Amino acid sequence: MGKRGSGEVRIFPLPVDGEIRPGDSLGAKLLTAAKSAQLRLQDGDILVVKHKVVSKAEGALVALDEVRPSAWSRAWGRRFGVDARVTELALRESRRVVRRKRGVLITETRHGFVCANSGVDVSNVDGGRHAVLLPGDPDRFAGRLRAEIKKKLGVEIAVIVSDSFGRPWREGLTEVAIGVAGMRPLIDYRGRHDPYGYSLHATVDAVADELACAAGLVCGKLAGTPACIIRGFVYRRGNGSGRELIRPAKYDLFR
Amino acid sequence: MGKRGSGEVRIFPLPVDGEIRPGDSLGAKLLTAAKSAQLRLQDGDILVVKHKVVSKAEGALVALDEVRPSAWSRAWGRRFGVDARVTELALRESRRVVRRKRGVLITETRHGFVCANSGVDVSNVDGGRHAVLLPGDPDRFAGRLRAEIKKKLGVEIAVIVSDSFGRPWREGLTEVAIGVAGMRPLIDYRGRHDPYGYSLHATVDAVADELACAAGLVCGKLAGTPACIIRGFVYRRGNGSGRELIRPAKYDLFR
Repeated sequence: MGKRGSGEVRIFPLPVDGEIRPGDSLGAKLLTAAKSAQLRLQDGDILVVKHKVVSKAEGALVALDEVRPSAWSRAWGRRFGVDARVTELALRESRRVVRRKRGVLITETRHGFVCANSGVDVSNVDGGRHAVLLPGDPDRFAGRLRAEIKKKLGVEIAVIVSDSFGRPWREGLTEVAIGVAGMRPLIDYRGRHDPYGYSLHATVDAVADELACAAGLVCGKLAGTPACIIRGFVYRRGNGSGRELIRPAKYDLFR
Repeated sequence: MGKRGSGEVRIFPLPVDGEIRPGDSLGAKLLTAAKSAQLRLQDGDILVVKHKVVSKAEGALVALDEVRPSAWSRAWGRRFGVDARVTELALRESRRVVRRKRGVLITETRHGFVCANSGVDVSNVDGGRHAVLLPGDPDRFAGRLRAEIKKKLGVEIAVIVSDSFGRPWREGLTEVAIGVAGMRPLIDYRGRHDPYGYSLHATVDAVADELACAAGLVCGKLAGTPACIIRGFVYRRGNGSGRELIRPAKYDLFR
């Protein structure tokens, strides 16, 4: 027995035609995209969706013209050459500022995610007129999409909503799972034994984040491919939540 | 143009028979494994190898019986119920202790990686008699394996050596690239524009880490599958190093 899923794993991109607008049924658009790509969702598939299209469909957009930055945000913007309105939104969307340095705000969002600018982003929206916020409840979106697909196609899949986060000590962004449905996001090896009989006492794998990263290989920043299907990875079914991937403060060495 | 590689991506596990021992030619073993699995390496493939087999082949193993822990390591071990010999090795392999709390040492290794216990690990070795250290120079191993495959098979591939690291704020381990050859580990979008004409000024993707995570889906902790082949992801060729993924201290908000 190994990590669940030691066969071949395949990642199929799911390009979506046209723009996602507030009120759109993202589920219907993704199913149309799958049909166009001649992909039929199967039992055990994992559908990974970039958060940005979720936020757009939910209308989690703010017209930057209508944001009135505070004096602090204006000073921060001037000092570091960043958009004070984005700073203002990042603070509004945050529960707490974790670090601030050289124009970068690392915040804890209302969901509990720790990331730059509370995930507020102006790229891939509409050329700088609107900012997109994180979805209000990425787990709820994932659960609804999973239920919709079960109803329409009769298949049990898992759904992951992903975003790109930076991280301390390492360069570059990687994808993380901010919403999860239909699978356990962590695999806990503690108490199991390796082939040499050694007890694995410190090994918990963040498989939902690894799946998000795998999806990131085909879901491009510039490509119009906001989703993909991962097939062949055998996950543990069950209720799951993106919040399980957030380390509780008391176990975090970095709070 | 999107993130390079918007076609299907496939990940083929590469199970290796038997144990890897100091002095083994890991390249020969991996090529035999590929043959057994009826996989033929192709131009543009990415071969991902878990660091542990690299360390074993290089003899980066220490008999725990021969480690004499310092008074500090013994006190730390007693206090938190951890093996003082492993703590001692973690300190020896480190350049600096980044955090220490509740038995966990986060260190900066001689290579510059920030991880738990300098990557010293007792699991999947031999049931607790030896500890495995990180490879001395993961980039050099990757470069040599790449050259060996080019010579033997006439194909240009990229090689990644991966390890599982924890990270602040999030639960669970994910794979990271500690050695890289034949590809650029980061894709820098800065200065490019999204489809809406918005300039992407803060977007650098750690694709080598995302590839390592994708590999982690098939390379199991318990499975005897220390390597895999990723096909279909179009990377930027060129010299690359795992060290490029280490954030320089002056740009790191968390030093």
